[in-house]
Amino acid sequence: MYKVDLNCDMGESFGLYELGNDEDMMQYITSANIACGFHGGDPHVMRRTIELAKNYNVGIGAHPAFPDLLGFGRRYMTCTPAEVKDYVTYQLGALREFCRAADVKIQHCKPHGALFMKAMEDKQLARSILEAVYEADRDMIIFALNQSEVYEEAVKMGVPVAKEAYSDREHTESGSIVLTRRGSEIADYEAMANRVVRMVKEGRVVTHDGKDVSIQAETICIHGDTPGAPQLAKAIVAALKAGGVEIVPVKNIIS
Amino acid sequence: MYKVDLNCDMGESFGLYELGNDEDMMQYITSANIACGFHGGDPHVMRRTIELAKNYNVGIGAHPAFPDLLGFGRRYMTCTPAEVKDYVTYQLGALREFCRAADVKIQHCKPHGALFMKAMEDKQLARSILEAVYEADRDMIIFALNQSEVYEEAVKMGVPVAKEAYSDREHTESGSIVLTRRGSEIADYEAMANRVVRMVKEGRVVTHDGKDVSIQAETICIHGDTPGAPQLAKAIVAALKAGGVEIVPVKNIIS
Amino acid sequence: MYKVDLNCDMGESFGLYELGNDEDMMQYITSANIACGFHGGDPHVMRRTIELAKNYNVGIGAHPAFPDLLGFGRRYMTCTPAEVKDYVTYQLGALREFCRAADVKIQHCKPHGALFMKAMEDKQLARSILEAVYEADRDMIIFALNQSEVYEEAVKMGVPVAKEAYSDREHTESGSIVLTRRGSEIADYEAMANRVVRMVKEGRVVTHDGKDVSIQAETICIHGDTPGAPQLAKAIVAALKAGGVEIVPVKNIIS
Amino acid sequence: MYKVDLNCDMGESFGLYELGNDEDMMQYITSANIACGFHGGDPHVMRRTIELAKNYNVGIGAHPAFPDLLGFGRRYMTCTPAEVKDYVTYQLGALREFCRAADVKIQHCKPHGALFMKAMEDKQLARSILEAVYEADRDMIIFALNQSEVYEEAVKMGVPVAKEAYSDREHTESGSIVLTRRGSEIADYEAMANRVVRMVKEGRVVTHDGKDVSIQAETICIHGDTPGAPQLAKAIVAALKAGGVEIVPVKNIIS
Repeated sequence: MYKVDLNCDMGESFGLYELGNDEDMMQYITSANIACGFHGGDPHVMRRTIELAKNYNVGIGAHPAFPDLLGFGRRYMTCTPAEVKDYVTYQLGALREFCRAADVKIQHCKPHGALFMKAMEDKQLARSILEAVYEADRDMIIFALNQSEVYEEAVKMGVPVAKEAYSDREHTESGSIVLTRRGSEIADYEAMANRVVRMVKEGRVVTHDGKDVSIQAETICIHGDTPGAPQLAKAIVAALKAGGVEIVPVKNIIS
Repeated sequence: MYKVDLNCDMGESFGLYELGNDEDMMQYITSANIACGFHGGDPHVMRRTIELAKNYNVGIGAHPAFPDLLGFGRRYMTCTPAEVKDYVTYQLGALREFCRAADVKIQHCKPHGALFMKAMEDKQLARSILEAVYEADRDMIIFALNQSEVYEEAVKMGVPVAKEAYSDREHTESGSIVLTRRGSEIADYEAMANRVVRMVKEGRVVTHDGKDVSIQAETICIHGDTPGAPQLAKAIVAALKAGGVEIVPVKNIIS
Repeated sequence: MYKVDLNCDMGESFGLYELGNDEDMMQYITSANIACGFHGGDPHVMRRTIELAKNYNVGIGAHPAFPDLLGFGRRYMTCTPAEVKDYVTYQLGALREFCRAADVKIQHCKPHGALFMKAMEDKQLARSILEAVYEADRDMIIFALNQSEVYEEAVKMGVPVAKEAYSDREHTESGSIVLTRRGSEIADYEAMANRVVRMVKEGRVVTHDGKDVSIQAETICIHGDTPGAPQLAKAIVAALKAGGVEIVPVKNIIS
Repeated sequence: MYKVDLNCDMGESFGLYELGNDEDMMQYITSANIACGFHGGDPHVMRRTIELAKNYNVGIGAHPAFPDLLGFGRRYMTCTPAEVKDYVTYQLGALREFCRAADVKIQHCKPHGALFMKAMEDKQLARSILEAVYEADRDMIIFALNQSEVYEEAVKMGVPVAKEAYSDREHTESGSIVLTRRGSEIADYEAMANRVVRMVKEGRVVTHDGKDVSIQAETICIHGDTPGAPQLAKAIVAALKAGGVEIVPVKNIIS
């Protein structure tokens, strides 16, 4: 039996500013990566998003970032390892308090933006994040790209780790992703959904430069701000179900 | 047997900016109110301050504030009750995560600056703070002035509450305090210490306008940025001990 | 010949967050109140919005606020007069530098949100804002409600001042406005437009509680985030032109 | 006749947080690099610092930084060229408005921290800063290390540029500086002062690894947070005067 988790960034609105299609996406996904106030999100949005995820029975994840609201956490900052660990602990804790108030648990942690991408290739940064996660909860699952430093270090440290692939970004041969969105192809939801099914069932994907490579996909990311994200999510869910793949929160896959 | 707790604001440094005499004060106090990043403090300072408090066996408290670093949380902001509750939850959670990492518990919550002063006279604001505290931990003690809305509401809601008096501020007849510091008298540590002893043992204090009124003092605040704060703390500790008063964390007084 | 200025808040996007219908509104208005980074707006948005206003030949105004991005400047903060003056100077200067780069001038200043509303009734706050405006440029026009402290003090200090009325808010007898938006009536653009024409030509308006009172309207505000704001603006422009009212930047009205 | 300018970072306090020895340093230096609110400084501190510089007849410079108060602008952020240009324009403008209020001019611009260091070796970043400076004022002088991209690009663009050397940091052969402070040697103010005199009069300095190389020093930086900074400044002034070097604002050197 094939299983996969579908994840999406959530709760990235801030104050008066609205971002994303949170409620629309919740019906399709099984894990929500919830912003913690450093790149997006605020205390009110965090409480509301956790309640929303709870209502849809979606697994809750922390989505910590560099302290850069103006850049939406997409700019790498040369923080020290201790700074990064402290930032992640702070954000995990803030989110966890709202989870406690709603009587739910944090299931996973997916770093955001530049923190995520840099950690994949920087062992020290990976360890800083993982130390904060490990201290917070030995059962908390970290999301990592295939062949990344985060994956390698998580395994060494005993942090549960889920391999992530992307529905709306191109992959590279080394397991990374290409940040720019796909152009003309972006609206072909069926093709994108079929690509997801193949990643899950065959463990293979065609890279941005046309190579057919192996990939592991325990959780699939759908970006909430991809144009037509809810339609893409709907197409992916339909294709996965048609292909006999069960869609479940990542904690039911990683154990 | 008389007992009292001594509390001090702590961990209010931010980034490169240093504030307070944290290490000097830790040796005299029994409860530390630790800033949570909204008016002062940052993730690194929070971790460091909790470890410091743990080393000195000092009770740890959250010191949440309005989101106003530029004004050091001393300016009242017309936030909604829901906003205030969410801000307190966020800050409690962030601090609690560092406590968990250090294997200590949050003992109490003392709101900071304008949030503290306004809540004392505003029932709705008091309730917003108390709801966040109550949701977070039924054992968490809130600090309140005598005759304040925070005290009244805490009693109604079943939140453990400690009555606070001040070593370095004048009191009013209604149980409030006068924000401006005492002038010429400020350096007379012995007189200030004796005033504290009288508050604790006799339950009485002379107000800023010369009336002798009753006051309850389960915890005594010493501001860390009062000139000569460590000497004042030392004088208070000596006077209390000489007067037969046991100085213990507030959790050993409120039960 | 009747003349009036139409103004709208602009450039309130921040980083990745988009807000308002700036380009749609620019074609209808004659004065833009441009956010300066304290409640909304950022350096990139400021440069872009000034260029947009220049392209549409719209008068440029500063829209300074309390330092409260999280609350979008809508929460009153108990800042000192000196703090407010310094905040306004800072924001005026930042905006002015982008104006210089685009070879345009700042025409006016309209404080934002809680700073605007509070200043209308608080003489000291009014003076703090006006001092910053006066120091920056003796020709800069301040916007003020009828019968407000800002109006009174501007006249005393010699700061050029334009009386403002609202297209999409109810007025009170004292010249103030009711902050909540009009409900069922909100979509009746024609009625709202006719109300504007009457304010300009007859100098009268029916208040929120049904009284017919006198009002002066040298500039009319249309909020960019009012639902259907561009349609409302279009209706107002059409009604004013049909009524023989010339729509011109406020500097051509105040002199 | 030898001439040199002495510069120091100033106005880096923020809100309640005090930093530096501004008033002590003002009596020794001829150019002040004043923080603009992104890494330190705030509107009140900016106004106060400009008045202080004016009183001491010290040349005023903008000290713009990455938007990173928490990291004091010492962390490199991967901003786009347009973002950097906009950030510099914003900060220059804010500072300039306070200068106008005090009836003084901005003499120069010295980027702060990570923005300064990275721009020295990154041509695109150098150009972004220089474009903002050039747009703001054709006479504004930029500070640059010897052999840096900022120097090269400034010359190409026609931006007046002053070559800077350091009194309290080691230099490298390539004209850069070593960020870590000098250890045991740090307190030998006389030796440091003599090194400055040699840089100015002979155009030579011994590098961190013992090589004797040529260097140009039109302005000498003394860090205000170097331990004993005022004593160091005093020693440098004395040594320069004894050596027949005139100490003047940089605008009197670059023309």
